Amino acid sequence: MTLNNSQSVNGFSWPVRVYYEDTDAGGVVYYANYLKFMERARTEWLRELGFEQDELRSRYDVIFAVKSVSIDYIRPAHFNNKLIVSVRVVEGGRASLVLEQEITKQNESGVLCQGQIKVVSLRASSFKPCPLPPELTQLLKQHIDPL
Amino acid sequence: MTLNNSQSVNGFSWPVRVYYEDTDAGGVVYYANYLKFMERARTEWLRELGFEQDELRSRYDVIFAVKSVSIDYIRPAHFNNKLIVSVRVVEGGRASLVLEQEITKQNESGVLCQGQIKVVSLRASSFKPCPLPPELTQLLKQHIDPL
Amino acid sequence: MTLNNSQSVNGFSWPVRVYYEDTDAGGVVYYANYLKFMERARTEWLRELGFEQDELRSRYDVIFAVKSVSIDYIRPAHFNNKLIVSVRVVEGGRASLVLEQEITKQNESGVLCQGQIKVVSLRASSFKPCPLPPELTQLLKQHIDPL
Amino acid sequence: MTLNNSQSVNGFSWPVRVYYEDTDAGGVVYYANYLKFMERARTEWLRELGFEQDELRSRYDVIFAVKSVSIDYIRPAHFNNKLIVSVRVVEGGRASLVLEQEITKQNESGVLCQGQIKVVSLRASSFKPCPLPPELTQLLKQHIDPL
Repeated sequence: MTLNNSQSVNGFSWPVRVYYEDTDAGGVVYYANYLKFMERARTEWLRELGFEQDELRSRYDVIFAVKSVSIDYIRPAHFNNKLIVSVRVVEGGRASLVLEQEITKQNESGVLCQGQIKVVSLRASSFKPCPLPPELTQLLKQHIDPL
Repeated sequence: MTLNNSQSVNGFSWPVRVYYEDTDAGGVVYYANYLKFMERARTEWLRELGFEQDELRSRYDVIFAVKSVSIDYIRPAHFNNKLIVSVRVVEGGRASLVLEQEITKQNESGVLCQGQIKVVSLRASSFKPCPLPPELTQLLKQHIDPL
Repeated sequence: MTLNNSQSVNGFSWPVRVYYEDTDAGGVVYYANYLKFMERARTEWLRELGFEQDELRSRYDVIFAVKSVSIDYIRPAHFNNKLIVSVRVVEGGRASLVLEQEITKQNESGVLCQGQIKVVSLRASSFKPCPLPPELTQLLKQHIDPL
Repeated sequence: MTLNNSQSVNGFSWPVRVYYEDTDAGGVVYYANYLKFMERARTEWLRELGFEQDELRSRYDVIFAVKSVSIDYIRPAHFNNKLIVSVRVVEGGRASLVLEQEITKQNESGVLCQGQIKVVSLRASSFKPCPLPPELTQLLKQHIDPL
């Protein structure tokens, strides 16, 4: 595992296209699906930092689980929109992370929705809390003050 | 539209079975899918109160949209679990509602997850805020003090 | 495991309510979601016959996997529709089943979609084909001629 | 609308990453979700050919609907896999298209699943069949013999 992109600890973003599967009969993206978009961005953020979640699981018996979500829906996204989903670490503990994520439309200002997501690390085999992978803690330490 | 079950303004609950579609490779229900379960329960709660959302839309040009969600994930649900999803109104305004929802396993104590969901009423044609249907406000007034 | 309802080998059906989550911006149920409805009905059919899939997995290391689907979409389902999903075994082999499934609207004639689904049994641990659970083969033998 | 990539009528492919949302408790991609992947590729194929589906709808009152799907599941995809989804037109009529789609893993031979999908064009306002957009028919004519 190589930590190849330490600037990305903060300031990462990931594009997501809205397909029919994401929308509902109200004509807009279904409210639960923004959580899928945010998780895609978190997965790609971890990958960018050098962490593949399947490796973390098979090698270290570690998985990440979402502990809480707080999300505000400001304006809806529609079919065919190209969205940008950001990831920013705002808090890091021994066994948890708090991330702020925003979704905007590409080339438009104005946030569509914003969320604060608390993620914990668990033993995959027992679902018991465990420390974050040390390489990740190390990397976050350089970038988050309160860690 | 007949308001046939005023006791259900608070204290409504709806059963949900967990199928493969709801789970992920972690072996548990995918975190966004609890929001689907909660919305199913809200839909059935409205139906129990006498409100069909397709009628509200075609007759009054009113739809409900989720404005914010705050959800805590306490213990995971698994394939084949039978869940109970509750709905309780904790706040009602002229054009919005705040609902508390809990998910438990049938015949087990202990909450799996709990959420506070703010719902607003919108004109279906314009997505602009509008008052809740008056029959609903009326019904809620009898049951929620701060309304 | 008790085989409590042998009439249900054929002639089983399961109700499914359409929620917002199931629809798309075209105003109708998203085409992939009918496969979810069909799988819910298959799960309930197996349960009715006395087979819980989590038990089959933990006790016999057997899971079912879909090998092929052929589905015709005839008329769309909409938000709030109450659907009926049928399950009928049309072919049974040593390690596979072919099921015919139809989706109709409750209290309306006319099929919305119909599918033929081939299901195989696999070792959960290896994903290799394995015989169907013998109790299931036995039960099907009484009802399907070519088995 | 500019038809900018006529080579893509056949031979188009689109990458799809597998996230947790796509998998189920069997540890593999849920069977209905391959239909989502295939639809993403069809959407991007149409875009590559110069057709934006939201424009087709607002300008020509045309939407595409899936009429039938026949899909074989050969080998499963897993979390984190990078998939390639192909699109190839095999038949074109006045108001319908038949597409063959295959899903493979990036940099691996061996097809995971393959489907034949019949798509029809409908008036968005009435859901009645209507001719394909003439520019699309024109484009396909150059590439599909039986059209």
